[in-house]
Amino acid sequence: MTLLVVGSIALDSIFTPFGETADALGGSAVYFSVAGSILHPVQVVGVVGHDYPYAELERLGGRGIDWSGVERAEGESFRWKGKYSYDLQSRETLETRLGVFADFQPKLPPSFKSARFLFLGNIDPQLQLGVLDQVQEPQLVVCDTMNYWIQSKKPDLLRLLARVDVLMVNDSEARELSGEWNIHRAGRWILQHGPKRVVIKQGEHGALLIEPRRTFYVPAFPLEAVFDPTGAGDAFAGGFMAYLARTGSVTEENLRRAMVYGAAMGSYAVEQFGIRAFEDVTLTNVEERVRAFQDLTHVPLAESLQ
Amino acid sequence: MTLLVVGSIALDSIFTPFGETADALGGSAVYFSVAGSILHPVQVVGVVGHDYPYAELERLGGRGIDWSGVERAEGESFRWKGKYSYDLQSRETLETRLGVFADFQPKLPPSFKSARFLFLGNIDPQLQLGVLDQVQEPQLVVCDTMNYWIQSKKPDLLRLLARVDVLMVNDSEARELSGEWNIHRAGRWILQHGPKRVVIKQGEHGALLIEPRRTFYVPAFPLEAVFDPTGAGDAFAGGFMAYLARTGSVTEENLRRAMVYGAAMGSYAVEQFGIRAFEDVTLTNVEERVRAFQDLTHVPLAESLQ
Repeated sequence: MTLLVVGSIALDSIFTPFGETADALGGSAVYFSVAGSILHPVQVVGVVGHDYPYAELERLGGRGIDWSGVERAEGESFRWKGKYSYDLQSRETLETRLGVFADFQPKLPPSFKSARFLFLGNIDPQLQLGVLDQVQEPQLVVCDTMNYWIQSKKPDLLRLLARVDVLMVNDSEARELSGEWNIHRAGRWILQHGPKRVVIKQGEHGALLIEPRRTFYVPAFPLEAVFDPTGAGDAFAGGFMAYLARTGSVTEENLRRAMVYGAAMGSYAVEQFGIRAFEDVTLTNVEERVRAFQDLTHVPLAESLQ
Repeated sequence: MTLLVVGSIALDSIFTPFGETADALGGSAVYFSVAGSILHPVQVVGVVGHDYPYAELERLGGRGIDWSGVERAEGESFRWKGKYSYDLQSRETLETRLGVFADFQPKLPPSFKSARFLFLGNIDPQLQLGVLDQVQEPQLVVCDTMNYWIQSKKPDLLRLLARVDVLMVNDSEARELSGEWNIHRAGRWILQHGPKRVVIKQGEHGALLIEPRRTFYVPAFPLEAVFDPTGAGDAFAGGFMAYLARTGSVTEENLRRAMVYGAAMGSYAVEQFGIRAFEDVTLTNVEERVRAFQDLTHVPLAESLQ
């Protein structure tokens, strides 16, 4: 089943207590596709400027990332500069330069329009709607968003929500969107606005899949060292979507499995700087980690006490 | 298997955004025993002042709480007054009056000295050591502590750690004790100082059981309304210990089951003010909630992708 992502392709400059990078490959579509492509081919729609190290992107494509939907525009590439706190619990944006991203109008190559699994990464909800209009018959549409769009484009975002199957956001975004502090009430609010399911990412505290009558919880992988949280949420999305696209099934049970593959990819993302962690990860590694996740919450059934 | 708890018996005045109580029954030994006694009888060691509504305690004893180890001293009872933030994420202590707790020297009735399961609630580590010396042949010793003792009595606390099987603390306590921000490194540090296992409670994010080669994670129960977090950790401890005492087994697998019973009790504690939530909870209710916990993290096995 074809898998398509639209999102940002950026040059990230990141400062953490453990080191820094300058103009490293980043952006939601990049993290999504380097993680996802370990499981399944990924088609990417995005934009880069004249200064983007496009050859480096293509090198990443060896695993099955199709960059032919990436527009190479005049002007500078999208750049993000951020600094994490000493405990990696919060981050400050030092600089955002939209560059060619400011006038981006995603246009799908004809061969992308039949994609069955669609992930609308965190971009302007108007653009997300524009992409959705171009995909003919998607089986599953998942979208991300962020506080900036919740504040500035809520009507567009609500129109989008009515048309997607799953909203995938982090906890602060779910709270801001719904106006509910309690994360389960926030999830309930979102379910009442369109999506049949909501995935709420909670960083070091794992992620929730909230459905009308059932909730699933996957913890974060127990890591004794975390170097760089950047991109963990997008890597999670990549693992989640690629597992579903590979298996071609969106049953409740398969969505739970996809959550675990997502969590595994998120755990790799934070272990090293930038996308580096994914260079050496194999499908065998991923499946070992998935089994470790299963052990992490495994409770052997016991007889009733009564 | 007999189960013994030593801890505080207090009068709590609590302010939350949803209401307030004044001089309500509280304290670690009370929450522990009202939760634990749903599963198994509990012997309590503690102290109250002349002004304590002892008849109310005795009324709670109907389920199998033995208060005969509670000393009734001259002077005023231990009182705690606290106020929670609007989101229940933090609390401020408005007043602590130690009263008779200041000179408390726990002394076990002869019939308590053969207890097999011992929970040393959060009191001065010197007193915890004193209780431990009085118990003849415990099968499992679990202790709690708090930042106050970590700061003021660390040498005593380290002596205690060398003699207990499990340390059960919340995440901020584990961090302060170990000097490690990362919770898994904090757990590792604790394992290197005596206990064979450490349980780290993370409030709305669940709890971890960290062992030398394995980690278990139980989430918090998904509740759309939380009224009063007071006592949730002690109720968790009561459920955990009472499950173990009832089943008489401390295997790895049974400890995981006990974590789920603990989490179930913690979830009841926060649903209403004070100990009120436990008045109507039956063993049948608890087992239903335990099954709901199992569904919350259940991932059906799938075939390998390879």
